[in-house]
Amino acid sequence: MPARPAPKKVVLAYSGGLDTSIILKWLQTEYGCEVVTFTADLGQGEELEPARAKAQMLGIRPENIRIEDLRETFVRDYVFPMFRANAVYEGLYLLGTSIARPLIARRLVEIARETGADAVAHGATGKGNDQVRFELSVAALDPSLRVIAPWRLWDLTSRTKLLEFAEAHQIPVAKDKRGEAPFSVDANLLHTSSEGKVLENPAEPFPDYVLQRVTPPEQAPDSPEMVEITFERGDAVAVNGEALSPATLLARLNELGSRHGIGILDLVENRFVGMKSRGVYETPGGTILLEAHRGIEQITLDAGAGHLKDSLMPRYAELIYNGFWFSPEREMLQALIDRSQEHVTGTVRLKLYKGSVRTVARWSDHSLYSERHVTFEEDAGAYDQTDAQGFITLNALRLRLIAARRARLGGGLGGGLGG
Amino acid sequence: MPARPAPKKVVLAYSGGLDTSIILKWLQTEYGCEVVTFTADLGQGEELEPARAKAQMLGIRPENIRIEDLRETFVRDYVFPMFRANAVYEGLYLLGTSIARPLIARRLVEIARETGADAVAHGATGKGNDQVRFELSVAALDPSLRVIAPWRLWDLTSRTKLLEFAEAHQIPVAKDKRGEAPFSVDANLLHTSSEGKVLENPAEPFPDYVLQRVTPPEQAPDSPEMVEITFERGDAVAVNGEALSPATLLARLNELGSRHGIGILDLVENRFVGMKSRGVYETPGGTILLEAHRGIEQITLDAGAGHLKDSLMPRYAELIYNGFWFSPEREMLQALIDRSQEHVTGTVRLKLYKGSVRTVARWSDHSLYSERHVTFEEDAGAYDQTDAQGFITLNALRLRLIAARRARLGGGLGGGLGG
Amino acid sequence: MPARPAPKKVVLAYSGGLDTSIILKWLQTEYGCEVVTFTADLGQGEELEPARAKAQMLGIRPENIRIEDLRETFVRDYVFPMFRANAVYEGLYLLGTSIARPLIARRLVEIARETGADAVAHGATGKGNDQVRFELSVAALDPSLRVIAPWRLWDLTSRTKLLEFAEAHQIPVAKDKRGEAPFSVDANLLHTSSEGKVLENPAEPFPDYVLQRVTPPEQAPDSPEMVEITFERGDAVAVNGEALSPATLLARLNELGSRHGIGILDLVENRFVGMKSRGVYETPGGTILLEAHRGIEQITLDAGAGHLKDSLMPRYAELIYNGFWFSPEREMLQALIDRSQEHVTGTVRLKLYKGSVRTVARWSDHSLYSERHVTFEEDAGAYDQTDAQGFITLNALRLRLIAARRARLGGGLGGGLGG
Amino acid sequence: MPARPAPKKVVLAYSGGLDTSIILKWLQTEYGCEVVTFTADLGQGEELEPARAKAQMLGIRPENIRIEDLRETFVRDYVFPMFRANAVYEGLYLLGTSIARPLIARRLVEIARETGADAVAHGATGKGNDQVRFELSVAALDPSLRVIAPWRLWDLTSRTKLLEFAEAHQIPVAKDKRGEAPFSVDANLLHTSSEGKVLENPAEPFPDYVLQRVTPPEQAPDSPEMVEITFERGDAVAVNGEALSPATLLARLNELGSRHGIGILDLVENRFVGMKSRGVYETPGGTILLEAHRGIEQITLDAGAGHLKDSLMPRYAELIYNGFWFSPEREMLQALIDRSQEHVTGTVRLKLYKGSVRTVARWSDHSLYSERHVTFEEDAGAYDQTDAQGFITLNALRLRLIAARRARLGGGLGGGLGG
Repeated sequence: MPARPAPKKVVLAYSGGLDTSIILKWLQTEYGCEVVTFTADLGQGEELEPARAKAQMLGIRPENIRIEDLRETFVRDYVFPMFRANAVYEGLYLLGTSIARPLIARRLVEIARETGADAVAHGATGKGNDQVRFELSVAALDPSLRVIAPWRLWDLTSRTKLLEFAEAHQIPVAKDKRGEAPFSVDANLLHTSSEGKVLENPAEPFPDYVLQRVTPPEQAPDSPEMVEITFERGDAVAVNGEALSPATLLARLNELGSRHGIGILDLVENRFVGMKSRGVYETPGGTILLEAHRGIEQITLDAGAGHLKDSLMPRYAELIYNGFWFSPEREMLQALIDRSQEHVTGTVRLKLYKGSVRTVARWSDHSLYSERHVTFEEDAGAYDQTDAQGFITLNALRLRLIAARRARLGGGLGGGLGG
Repeated sequence: MPARPAPKKVVLAYSGGLDTSIILKWLQTEYGCEVVTFTADLGQGEELEPARAKAQMLGIRPENIRIEDLRETFVRDYVFPMFRANAVYEGLYLLGTSIARPLIARRLVEIARETGADAVAHGATGKGNDQVRFELSVAALDPSLRVIAPWRLWDLTSRTKLLEFAEAHQIPVAKDKRGEAPFSVDANLLHTSSEGKVLENPAEPFPDYVLQRVTPPEQAPDSPEMVEITFERGDAVAVNGEALSPATLLARLNELGSRHGIGILDLVENRFVGMKSRGVYETPGGTILLEAHRGIEQITLDAGAGHLKDSLMPRYAELIYNGFWFSPEREMLQALIDRSQEHVTGTVRLKLYKGSVRTVARWSDHSLYSERHVTFEEDAGAYDQTDAQGFITLNALRLRLIAARRARLGGGLGGGLGG
Repeated sequence: MPARPAPKKVVLAYSGGLDTSIILKWLQTEYGCEVVTFTADLGQGEELEPARAKAQMLGIRPENIRIEDLRETFVRDYVFPMFRANAVYEGLYLLGTSIARPLIARRLVEIARETGADAVAHGATGKGNDQVRFELSVAALDPSLRVIAPWRLWDLTSRTKLLEFAEAHQIPVAKDKRGEAPFSVDANLLHTSSEGKVLENPAEPFPDYVLQRVTPPEQAPDSPEMVEITFERGDAVAVNGEALSPATLLARLNELGSRHGIGILDLVENRFVGMKSRGVYETPGGTILLEAHRGIEQITLDAGAGHLKDSLMPRYAELIYNGFWFSPEREMLQALIDRSQEHVTGTVRLKLYKGSVRTVARWSDHSLYSERHVTFEEDAGAYDQTDAQGFITLNALRLRLIAARRARLGGGLGGGLGG
Repeated sequence: MPARPAPKKVVLAYSGGLDTSIILKWLQTEYGCEVVTFTADLGQGEELEPARAKAQMLGIRPENIRIEDLRETFVRDYVFPMFRANAVYEGLYLLGTSIARPLIARRLVEIARETGADAVAHGATGKGNDQVRFELSVAALDPSLRVIAPWRLWDLTSRTKLLEFAEAHQIPVAKDKRGEAPFSVDANLLHTSSEGKVLENPAEPFPDYVLQRVTPPEQAPDSPEMVEITFERGDAVAVNGEALSPATLLARLNELGSRHGIGILDLVENRFVGMKSRGVYETPGGTILLEAHRGIEQITLDAGAGHLKDSLMPRYAELIYNGFWFSPEREMLQALIDRSQEHVTGTVRLKLYKGSVRTVARWSDHSLYSERHVTFEEDAGAYDQTDAQGFITLNALRLRLIAARRARLGGGLGGGLGG
């Protein structure tokens, strides 16, 4: 293939950190192109204005520096829809990084369109999932845009070379960045993830200093704390009776969870690109939210709806993990999930204590729980126990026919297929 | 339908308690039939010999009194196969009661065949799942056997009537059984469940005295405890390096879990018979075992096997919950699950602390984790980052074609279906 | 249980035939209740006015005789949504009877509300699926209504008794109904089903006289006929370029299919109540429609959407077969399916010939087929074949790691789990 | 990446045709390597000895020419296991090409090991699925082997260049190969596929001359033919009572199907690499076999087993289509499917006529069909119709509770979620 012509204008997902600053400069030198920086507040807990100053210092024109607070959008349009599904990847991971990528990609594309850019760029490496998530999202939203992934292109393949490049291009390197970080961190309002370096041996427990945000359970308060979360149509709307916007609500739950040591996960997971990786995830508010959402669904969803959702959740979570947020199949599953949430309204009370969160009570005007039916006491005819006879007999009919076959063919005692 | 003739000989699942003693006497008086009592030790933590004495007192001939220790069978042939699937019902329940029923039913059937009985009887009520589990199992194993469910047949529909019947038939009633128990309990080596009465309002937290076996987390030790569990082909075989039989191993984990407040669940679930019920479950060892099994699978199962298992788990758990252990479809799923466990061998280290259990390390000769591939360091060519380009491009192709259609038809920016 | 008080007013699904006329009279005599008859035209191909006359003759007041043409509603709101899913039960059955039941039940409930009736009644037997479909639908729509299923209640358990009852109550019996029909028939615009009697031995081919509507293929025209069906958003809207209403369109396809011997199915299926039954189904238009819908989806749905639909279709079909049309899970699946149909617009050309229908061409403005990409000719860079290398390498990575494990552990050549 | 060193010895999947002869020579000239040719008889209907002569002529030493008859292996170990699942891709395609690839790949790997080769090579292009199937299989079986895919590597990107290369290297070109074939063909005992060139416009019906093997239905005999196929444990073992080996049996069915115009499919499908393609498939025997297998399962599988299989079939078919035959998940699904086939034994009678095949009768000692239960006649108590009451009532309970909620909250008539 002949080399492609250089892009003219590139929108870069820019954090203001060393790596994306090097990318910024590399784009300028490699392609001679104009760069638009996009820096989003997704609740990662860092000041964004330094990113502006740094971009300016690296020669970006003011109108090409975009800084946005996307926290409400992030929680309302990405985190909450995902939590309606009780999504966990591989049984345990709450998808905190995965769910942020499509939003960033969407804004990159929109800004590219606004600014007439012909490419977008990101700082994800060629080994991870994030490159896939960014690039599938861009392809789905605007396939005419080129995506530049410098980590897959350049020859800055070691720490030394990166620092040399920084030095050669007057990119300031903070003293504490001269040495290598002992692990790599990603953060947003939903979670903090840590991976790499000291974490690469899954047979070694992670050292305490890896935790960025959640108090180790042993240091959490000695008294439990109760919290009540109210849901409307599947989304959390209030904490302890106080109505809160999506991002404010998640921030509140993060405070509670962090204080009580909740949401620490040490996981070895399967990346979409085929290898296993080990990560430490801290998802304090999300862990509470998942437990609460399950709690309210317990009384407001019937078995038909609940079991269907449960059976599709792994597929839904896998799609998000793999980067297919903007795919027909994710949207179809979302339609199914959203359809189930119409009555997922009510309040859950949870107990937070030293690393665990547990539903202790739940109530709702939309409850399907019927004390009349379930009671051990006299039920005034709500339920006729003789109905169970017919129910069992007909559910058993096919099993009886199988057993009769086994007997006919001379088989011994058995169940199922009669082996 | 004309009334069926009375059974001649009935094998009764007999606990030695008041309710099944009344059933025993009712069978004798209602049908004039011979009764064989079957009392199994499934690790419920009660002496069984009193059941023998009581059965004798109620007129059962010694050769008709069967008392068996089924703990090893229970864990090896029922609990362990189920844990290979990481089975949880409705996201949370570890199926402690559900998994015991098929074993009891199987022994009832086998004893009926040995003793020439023409019926079996159980003490489950007409509102619950256990009647279904017992009766589907019997239908699958020997459909020629009649199942008698006195709670669906008799007119002893109140506590008063039951006690009157007991008195009329010289069935001794322990003083503490004269009043009604504040809730109903079922226990075996895997779990203790409590439900009914004081637990019937799911908006009310359960009182502490409901807990039968697990220390409330607040009263658990202030220091975490580490435990190492070793697996071979999907089943736990050793704790802290000590090889243990299945039942002994689960008992060991129960001690650890109970001490550290692990495995308490307050759940509103959907019964197979159509209503919701609220239960408090204590599954100390099982909760540790589930976490550990997930931990070892993380490094020994690849994504293809793991995700397939995950996607079928809800269906598998539902089958067990609903009583279809002895069904072709459960056996087919078991074949699939068992096929995946060939390399699920290795050791997991877990931290137990005040109600939570968390994997902190895992290692295995069968590990698929490849530090060479995942490392942030120089990987000596194990992984070529440029491969990611082609991988993403082809995964994106269909998304690009969808986006091109949207553009062609005049749609705006969008993902997925392009709405 | 004490006997329930008699219903006061019952809405009966009334065909005007002998069986439902006997039910009508039985309701009157058994309960002394008022009866409202409901007779619907679902395209079964019978005059409805005779049902009015007969109802009047049996003493039903004119205002209590409801006759309705539901053909358009049936096809638009029931048949078409189902065909969006390509639903077939057990691989082959197009659900012609199943899909009509919820509509009839819905109208029964609505008429009961309009007329102040406290019960509805149907003529389905206690062995089949239709009783379940009627009664689950009524329960879902208005659980306060009682459902009366005379076949499960009365003692008219033989043909002789039925005829005696008819004679005793001056119900006219057509001469050709005096003997027993050699099989039982159900019909509507979608299909005709035949079962029972001469069809009860599945080892015996059905005799030609069973076919009610489709020409035997051997007698179909010797020349093929082409037909073009146009779809909009998943629903057929035109045949050979002529826009048609849903019912008119299905009738047109029925003519075509019947002429060419299309849509005959001889099936042994699993009933929801646990037994197997054998039926002969004739679904001429539906069989064409299914093939056409698949044909248009081939070019308008991408793999993600299509495979997700395919994987859920069996569950969706099972729900309809079992009577759960008005259930949350059917509605959730419908939301998912409908979401996928936004671009299922275009035209399919099919060839009809002596029992078979085959797509021979399809085109659409919404097509995702890209000749540029797929061509064997020069593709002008649409597709870079070197991308396949990376795609394959990363898809293979986990398989290579598994193989490396096998080699490490001393296993031989193998695939998969390495057994 | 630095260029890899040349392979020393390559096993080439060699058909003897022009394309693979060019590849053979290209490997020799490009790498200076030794080439081992592997030519397999999979029932494609071509003489293999010419391939030997041609290989020799191209300088391959006799001991490096491998020609094998794999027909029995192909049908017994690949086709039959797949048919146990009733596998069809995207609702229609019987996977005739897909299922042959893993066997060829397996033999390539085995021969490489036997001959000490360090690479294998295939003639699949960079746009199709076959490259993926070959290479995933090799990766799963022996990841140390290099795979060479010349179509992705060389610059022979036009017909003209290929012919020039052939001429330059004394590769004989048959006269009829000088022009381009109007479409591309793949064949084996299961099917013939045609694609490309004249077939690239899916809006154009394929011309009759595309058909390679099946008589057009209009030219098929005017009289139907009956055939009986006998199964044992899921696999066909006899035709019309004559026991046949797997390959012989499939050949026999091919004769029958081809004569009667059976198994023609014109499909637009989704390739794994992301684009759609259009193919014409002829699967005469396989189409009969699928119908027959469904027919025997109808009476020998119960609903639990059958519905579980049905729900997983699309995933299983997708795995085979995508090239994951040697993957843990395909093997897990196979274990599940095989477990279900224990009693799939019996005989099916089918009618073949002008393009269609239809089950008309089926019988088995293993049948679960119970005429006693299903009969419209007196059933002597086999089935108690009053059981249906309880069955329906409990299945309806959750729907009633949903409806009660809707009424409580003021909603109108509705079903399901109560919208």
